[in-house]
Amino acid sequence: MSAVHLTLIGIGTGNPEHLTLQAIRAINAQDLILIPRKGPGKDDLAELRRAICDEVLENEATRLVEFDLPVRDAATADYRRRVDDWHDAIAEAWRGAMAEQPEAARVALLVWGDPSLYDSTLRIAARLDPPPQVEVIPGITSLQALTAAHAIPVNEIGAPFVVTTGRRLRDAGWPDGIDTLVVMLDGTCAFADIDAGGVHIWWGGYVGMPEQIICEGPLAEVAERIVQMRAEARARHGWIMDIYILRRDHGA
Amino acid sequence: MSAVHLTLIGIGTGNPEHLTLQAIRAINAQDLILIPRKGPGKDDLAELRRAICDEVLENEATRLVEFDLPVRDAATADYRRRVDDWHDAIAEAWRGAMAEQPEAARVALLVWGDPSLYDSTLRIAARLDPPPQVEVIPGITSLQALTAAHAIPVNEIGAPFVVTTGRRLRDAGWPDGIDTLVVMLDGTCAFADIDAGGVHIWWGGYVGMPEQIICEGPLAEVAERIVQMRAEARARHGWIMDIYILRRDHGA
Repeated sequence: MSAVHLTLIGIGTGNPEHLTLQAIRAINAQDLILIPRKGPGKDDLAELRRAICDEVLENEATRLVEFDLPVRDAATADYRRRVDDWHDAIAEAWRGAMAEQPEAARVALLVWGDPSLYDSTLRIAARLDPPPQVEVIPGITSLQALTAAHAIPVNEIGAPFVVTTGRRLRDAGWPDGIDTLVVMLDGTCAFADIDAGGVHIWWGGYVGMPEQIICEGPLAEVAERIVQMRAEARARHGWIMDIYILRRDHGA
Repeated sequence: MSAVHLTLIGIGTGNPEHLTLQAIRAINAQDLILIPRKGPGKDDLAELRRAICDEVLENEATRLVEFDLPVRDAATADYRRRVDDWHDAIAEAWRGAMAEQPEAARVALLVWGDPSLYDSTLRIAARLDPPPQVEVIPGITSLQALTAAHAIPVNEIGAPFVVTTGRRLRDAGWPDGIDTLVVMLDGTCAFADIDAGGVHIWWGGYVGMPEQIICEGPLAEVAERIVQMRAEARARHGWIMDIYILRRDHGA
């Protein structure tokens, strides 16, 4: 197989209006768009990708091909190894899907949010052989959808902030010398287990989507409510993606 | 004056194709769009905002009104005070511009990048009296334009990163426990004065724009070249906006 031109297109966080003009042009420039399928009951995102293509794709030569997204092997204890193995398996699934259209020179994936931020697509692309020529189209991230929903800046004037994961907050605690944390990929409400003194939280689930729910306030007062909102929403929709900002009083 | 509905519209980093469908719809929903003017020779950004409106504005009722952007008073020694005074002056300039169209109920500003990230517009909006009803439309940030230009993720797998300023890197040094730094608003090449051992840099100027220039490599090898590229580009264009990512070898 000769090297393809692989375009990773950031599509934002589920609001079809997050699409940029650049993303729409890129979608229409492809021979093949690969659509991951997670399996019955989990395919809101596959449907969203198809809906986006239905809405903006005018190039009749562009083909959509679905592939089954492998699942991570929970039996692999080491986190990094588990992720590496999973990325290998996804690259293999891409190869299978691309083999259905071997003449396709321009192939794309529609990436939730932006391909640069806690997303594996660039790492999976690096596993293809021969290596593709990779192009990235930026997209609106969940962090931007969160700050827009709350109409807040993420940083204080001239001050730094950390972007981290729920796992990391749980394992390593609040980073030294930083008052503002953005926490992503937190499946277990790590915010509920930190010292809440002097900390404010701005939380959102499904940010940017019609299902969007948000809550903000002093962490000590709203943590329990957020845990409950999150559990109820997850039960109702079958899945949840959420994100939050924590800010502590300067010097707290 | 009654409270207005004020929409802060993220427009991305100078590529008109960074506009989202949501931003285009918002631009067309306004009575009045305020365009800041910096003065002769510095108005590439005012021209860009006008060009964007020329391109996507179809609502003939929408008026554009320019206002002179105040300059920061270099005589005020305290950084925070200087910024606060400047924001007060900008709010006053907005009031003057809005007074030209007192019947305008929906007013917008086009914000470079995203209104959440090292941008003052939300803080200036909070100075209006009566307080406006604020809506934020997210836009592509220079960080995303940088990572797209280099086709790299900003984070390592599951790892945190810090977003900070050149001033802060210079004053406070490399933050503890973090291997990846995003540095914005660095007018004085702070990267050239840190310990370069084991550090890689991905740098970009005018990211997302036709003038875009990028450079990456081991900091020890490319720092000097970037300082030179930056100086030459700044001399040629009369201004520069740049941003970079620094990553040190784990545990370096």
